[in-house]
Amino acid sequence: MNNFVFQNPTKLVFGKGEIAKLSTLLPKDKRILVTFGGGSVKRNGVYDQVVAALEGFDYLEFWGIEPNPKVETLRKAVEVCKRENIGFLLAVGGGSTLDGTKLIASAAVIEEDAWELVLNPKLQCGNIPFASVMTLPATGSEMNRGCVISNLATGEKFAFYNAYPTFSILDPTTTYTLPSFQRACGLADTFIHVIEQYLTYTGESPLMDRWAEGVLQTIVEIAPKVLNVSENDYDTMASFMLSATMGLNGFVAMGVSQDWATHRIGHELTALCGITHGQTLVVVLPGVMNELRDQKAGKILQYGERVWGITEGSAQERIDRTISATEQFFRSLGLATRLSELGVGEDVVEEIVSRFRTRGTRLGEALNIDYALTDRILRQRL
Amino acid sequence: MNNFVFQNPTKLVFGKGEIAKLSTLLPKDKRILVTFGGGSVKRNGVYDQVVAALEGFDYLEFWGIEPNPKVETLRKAVEVCKRENIGFLLAVGGGSTLDGTKLIASAAVIEEDAWELVLNPKLQCGNIPFASVMTLPATGSEMNRGCVISNLATGEKFAFYNAYPTFSILDPTTTYTLPSFQRACGLADTFIHVIEQYLTYTGESPLMDRWAEGVLQTIVEIAPKVLNVSENDYDTMASFMLSATMGLNGFVAMGVSQDWATHRIGHELTALCGITHGQTLVVVLPGVMNELRDQKAGKILQYGERVWGITEGSAQERIDRTISATEQFFRSLGLATRLSELGVGEDVVEEIVSRFRTRGTRLGEALNIDYALTDRILRQRL
Repeated sequence: MNNFVFQNPTKLVFGKGEIAKLSTLLPKDKRILVTFGGGSVKRNGVYDQVVAALEGFDYLEFWGIEPNPKVETLRKAVEVCKRENIGFLLAVGGGSTLDGTKLIASAAVIEEDAWELVLNPKLQCGNIPFASVMTLPATGSEMNRGCVISNLATGEKFAFYNAYPTFSILDPTTTYTLPSFQRACGLADTFIHVIEQYLTYTGESPLMDRWAEGVLQTIVEIAPKVLNVSENDYDTMASFMLSATMGLNGFVAMGVSQDWATHRIGHELTALCGITHGQTLVVVLPGVMNELRDQKAGKILQYGERVWGITEGSAQERIDRTISATEQFFRSLGLATRLSELGVGEDVVEEIVSRFRTRGTRLGEALNIDYALTDRILRQRL
Repeated sequence: MNNFVFQNPTKLVFGKGEIAKLSTLLPKDKRILVTFGGGSVKRNGVYDQVVAALEGFDYLEFWGIEPNPKVETLRKAVEVCKRENIGFLLAVGGGSTLDGTKLIASAAVIEEDAWELVLNPKLQCGNIPFASVMTLPATGSEMNRGCVISNLATGEKFAFYNAYPTFSILDPTTTYTLPSFQRACGLADTFIHVIEQYLTYTGESPLMDRWAEGVLQTIVEIAPKVLNVSENDYDTMASFMLSATMGLNGFVAMGVSQDWATHRIGHELTALCGITHGQTLVVVLPGVMNELRDQKAGKILQYGERVWGITEGSAQERIDRTISATEQFFRSLGLATRLSELGVGEDVVEEIVSRFRTRGTRLGEALNIDYALTDRILRQRL
């Protein structure tokens, strides 16, 4: 086991009706900026619950943080924070709204431009405290200190890290109105967040392995019920929300190596082609597993046995079957697993490879996924 | 899934050589009281590491917090805190040292007696901040806000809750000198902490079930290696330490019912007969499982299948085999599983039952374990 430091101070407030607790959780002595996405929270009743809980608070609203939040939009919110003396941020919506809000929180306390901050995290000097009402199980943003920000002008998408949400309220009933595609992408995103923290070396931490496998097993088990939109099964959606949060809050990552190559390559597909995050991941992952099949052999075999029950055949056969089971699971969610299905051709692959070559990118737990290996990974996913 | 609020702010600093980080973690502007147990830290080198890291700090030492910390001892430390203007407490040792320190932390800021505080938690009004260097995997005290305090004069032992440690440093190499019996009791304690949060109802949270089972599976897997004292296998002891911490920090308890009857009955055996905590638990648990076999049937069957691979036979047969497998596991640790093996007779059972009758005690997830049921549980463990 590797040495590690773990601390996650976010207060998780979980369950039906808990949005009303906002009134006891928010600071009464600060001006609050409430940030929103495109308006789905007005259709599903979340907005009304938030407004009711905010009665008596001094707050402003900022609307329009889009999926894969663009720095161009966030700059406007940063201006509002500076102009209106905002002392607390509350993100209401999905992971993109909260991700964008995390950058706003840090960019509002410095003079430099928000994108400069993404490119140069050393500019960071604190942040406005922030919290969330999370309505979409997927990113885990509600209990971690990361966010991913896009730049429309440059076609870039990068991760940025600042602080943990003070609190996050998760009410599973707010997920009932999510469309199937968003549910599928959320399941895939959660699954692959865990894979990134798990599918590296064997034996680093037997307990973390079990916990990672526990999230994967739970996602596989609940997926058919999650996708059955007509059911609105509270316990199923609660399991989904809890799994998404626990999948990326550090709880399965203590003392173990991490990969994240699939995410880094996937971000490029979103930046260049606008493909939804979870959808990019399921296309890339089978390629990463196949190209790294020797390096990751032990862990792929363990994963295949414990999550998919694959125990028969030679090691190479079991690895093939495990990669195939993983891809089939993603297809069972209704997601595409080939670039061609998404209209992505060789030109995009070449652009990504060219970017990685220019940047000298090296990904994965062994930092051996360079531009050439990325080329092989992506070409087999065409 | 039940609604829940989760927050655990403790910073966990884990790994070989990390005690040296004390110098960066402790407050420089406060007088520190460092609390110790009976002196094993002087024999295993931990004391020297702590003293080296504390160079330049203003600190005092308090020695002699015993196993099952006694309020009689802790009162002396409370006096020191008040007299010496102590602003931070650092517990160095096992769970008892830290448990005692938690009570000191709260008792030092009130006028009333420390035992009054245990009996009446409403007297609590804050605490001196505290942290730990934890050297014994067992109690989980290093990452939770609970402690268990004994009263020598009255022969009582009760739990008390205040605040989380600011930080806890866990270096697995500090466990190499633990005697076999302490290792065995630590494994049993960890195992049964998880059982208390797991062996209730089915279906409340599939993810928490997986995580609880993950700790149980890990403990079963590493136990033979942990008990092989001559090996000093770092990764094994690291897994043991991590499992003990994760077994009682709230991470497996989100949205699920809890039991704790085994602990409450076990505390009486310690209070009346001085039996080591982990040893009391393994005697009591099989009796609780057997008497509650109908109420807990679904979860016992799930536990039997996932942890012990028991899938054949009728439900009643599988429950019998699962209880038996659990007891055999404890015996494989070298622990007694019968009261008679520990010299405990009917008189003690009668005293415990009489206490529960007087107090109107009702234990377990359904609050249906009263004095009469406790009598049946204990008599079958004679």
